Amino acid sequence: MMDRSWMRGSTRHFKPYYSPDADGALRLDTNTNVLGPNPAAAAALADLAGLDFNQYPDTYSRPLRRKLAECHGLSEGNFVTGSGSDEIIDILFKTFTDKGDLAVMPYPSYSIYDYFSELHGGVPVKVDLDDDFQLDVEAMLDPAAAIIMIPSPNNPTGNSFRREDLLRIIEDSDCPVVIDEAYGEYCGPSFIPLVEEHDNLIVTRTFSKAYAMAGLRVGYCACGAAAAEMMTCIRIPYSLNMLSERAAVAALEDQDFIRRTVEMTERNRPKLADGLEGMGFHCFPSDANFILARSPVDHRSLVEGLKERGILVRDFGHRRRLEGCVRFTVGTEEMNDRLLQACEELTG
Amino acid sequence: MMDRSWMRGSTRHFKPYYSPDADGALRLDTNTNVLGPNPAAAAALADLAGLDFNQYPDTYSRPLRRKLAECHGLSEGNFVTGSGSDEIIDILFKTFTDKGDLAVMPYPSYSIYDYFSELHGGVPVKVDLDDDFQLDVEAMLDPAAAIIMIPSPNNPTGNSFRREDLLRIIEDSDCPVVIDEAYGEYCGPSFIPLVEEHDNLIVTRTFSKAYAMAGLRVGYCACGAAAAEMMTCIRIPYSLNMLSERAAVAALEDQDFIRRTVEMTERNRPKLADGLEGMGFHCFPSDANFILARSPVDHRSLVEGLKERGILVRDFGHRRRLEGCVRFTVGTEEMNDRLLQACEELTG
Repeated sequence: MMDRSWMRGSTRHFKPYYSPDADGALRLDTNTNVLGPNPAAAAALADLAGLDFNQYPDTYSRPLRRKLAECHGLSEGNFVTGSGSDEIIDILFKTFTDKGDLAVMPYPSYSIYDYFSELHGGVPVKVDLDDDFQLDVEAMLDPAAAIIMIPSPNNPTGNSFRREDLLRIIEDSDCPVVIDEAYGEYCGPSFIPLVEEHDNLIVTRTFSKAYAMAGLRVGYCACGAAAAEMMTCIRIPYSLNMLSERAAVAALEDQDFIRRTVEMTERNRPKLADGLEGMGFHCFPSDANFILARSPVDHRSLVEGLKERGILVRDFGHRRRLEGCVRFTVGTEEMNDRLLQACEELTG
Repeated sequence: MMDRSWMRGSTRHFKPYYSPDADGALRLDTNTNVLGPNPAAAAALADLAGLDFNQYPDTYSRPLRRKLAECHGLSEGNFVTGSGSDEIIDILFKTFTDKGDLAVMPYPSYSIYDYFSELHGGVPVKVDLDDDFQLDVEAMLDPAAAIIMIPSPNNPTGNSFRREDLLRIIEDSDCPVVIDEAYGEYCGPSFIPLVEEHDNLIVTRTFSKAYAMAGLRVGYCACGAAAAEMMTCIRIPYSLNMLSERAAVAALEDQDFIRRTVEMTERNRPKLADGLEGMGFHCFPSDANFILARSPVDHRSLVEGLKERGILVRDFGHRRRLEGCVRFTVGTEEMNDRLLQACEELTG
């Protein structure tokens, strides 16, 4: 009889992922780019005449890896691509962890790391951040770790970690250290230039946030050639489709859009924070395109009330250390005004 | 130090996948549709204006699953989608197998099943087919199996398995039985209509072969609602991108293209077989869009010689039971003439 006893032991408690009924709402819950679809990618997709999508894509995405190598001043052998950076994280756990292995990660942080750790039969070890949401470096340096996962800027807290702390963890670990730069465009500098220096450093990036291509599912990592070669043997062949690869190559050629995106975020983030603070929210410092804020009213009624007003935000208020907290994507000026107006109604 | 000792124990011997330098060659090595890209999908992709690919796709591909439900007379809860049917196979192993678990499969068959079994720390159990490449039903019914993988038509042999044998395996097994119908359009009838009757039956399908969309990476499985729900909790959220999903929905609406594809294959397959037999090849019976044939000359020099003439075919001659064998995709009349001409030169 097909029931959950047939599932892998470590996953029998899994539930489906966050999947709200959006239905035309203003989505300030997913931290995508509020300027809309990437224009260079849109242009690349506008003319697909002659594209032979009946053939398999390049097995290991050489066109995109060549372009990434050019952009970052590295070699194509330093890159692995995936269908979103979530696939990259899956590949990392498949490649470098075995059943029972420890995956060390900060807490609070991005929940997909525990998901993949448990999915692969591993044991997530969550190391509490300090009161400023900075890393506890000593505790992160667990000698039993098979992999260390650190997003910087961190999600959902929004801050990036101190560079010297990250360097110390990379240098003093005897396992892969993954710096997830999903929001890396919003703050500098990247760790990608260091991958040749530290063979255990793996930096992941996505086209779903600043690059405004979440619907196309493209992610990648940069790392030393040895790690990339191992991951390549584990990655599902052809996993990145031809259209998304073409769009990603085009998007990398338009750095002006990324600059405009970051400037807009830097302009609007303090205004949004000020507006929220004025209503009694406590906003945590952010280096990304979102703000984590502790609500002055019950987080559930705030999120529900915003939903009724056609605005989706992400509720983290039920999690330890994030009690009462909600995460807001930084919008355009108009979106932020609409959000602040609605918050005013719900907290006033 | 980053070396293979950091890899999951079961995968340290893995190599990259088959990835030839194609460079304009006639590809009769991948069994894609020789009629070219799916026209309905091409039409759907020709107008992407207004597509907000800056948003995430539906987390669990509801638009495609609704269309599949309509086509197959089932519910959307009977389907799981993936980035190619390879991702579906990965999800199956993630969901239903644990480290050390046995995966039973016929031999010779599609090598990706052992790859995924080992990737997930399992033990592939390969059960030899009989001299007609039919199933050894008793041996396949291994009571220790955690999953049974059977492609029908089988790849690379080309024949489909006896329906009564497959039914017996489904009925007498106490684990998921996966019928991989990657080439199911080329022969009938499908096992999809039986998924409500047998809760351990899972049928996988791809858009990479008859549907002529290999570059877009779309696959799915049909199964009982309980199995689909478990797989949904394991599948990487958003794994199917928005463009490929849109193209797949459109392609399902154009069954005429599939009929033309199958008719062309049925017309050209015996002609290709006759031509090859006339040169001393031994062709095995095929229900798919390819032919496995034992070469009258050394298989390596045949495949090399064809490559020099701009034609890629797939060499299986080094594998046990397939000694001297090569797999040819059935082409259009022109492609087959070109292939036969080249074979003539190499065997004459």
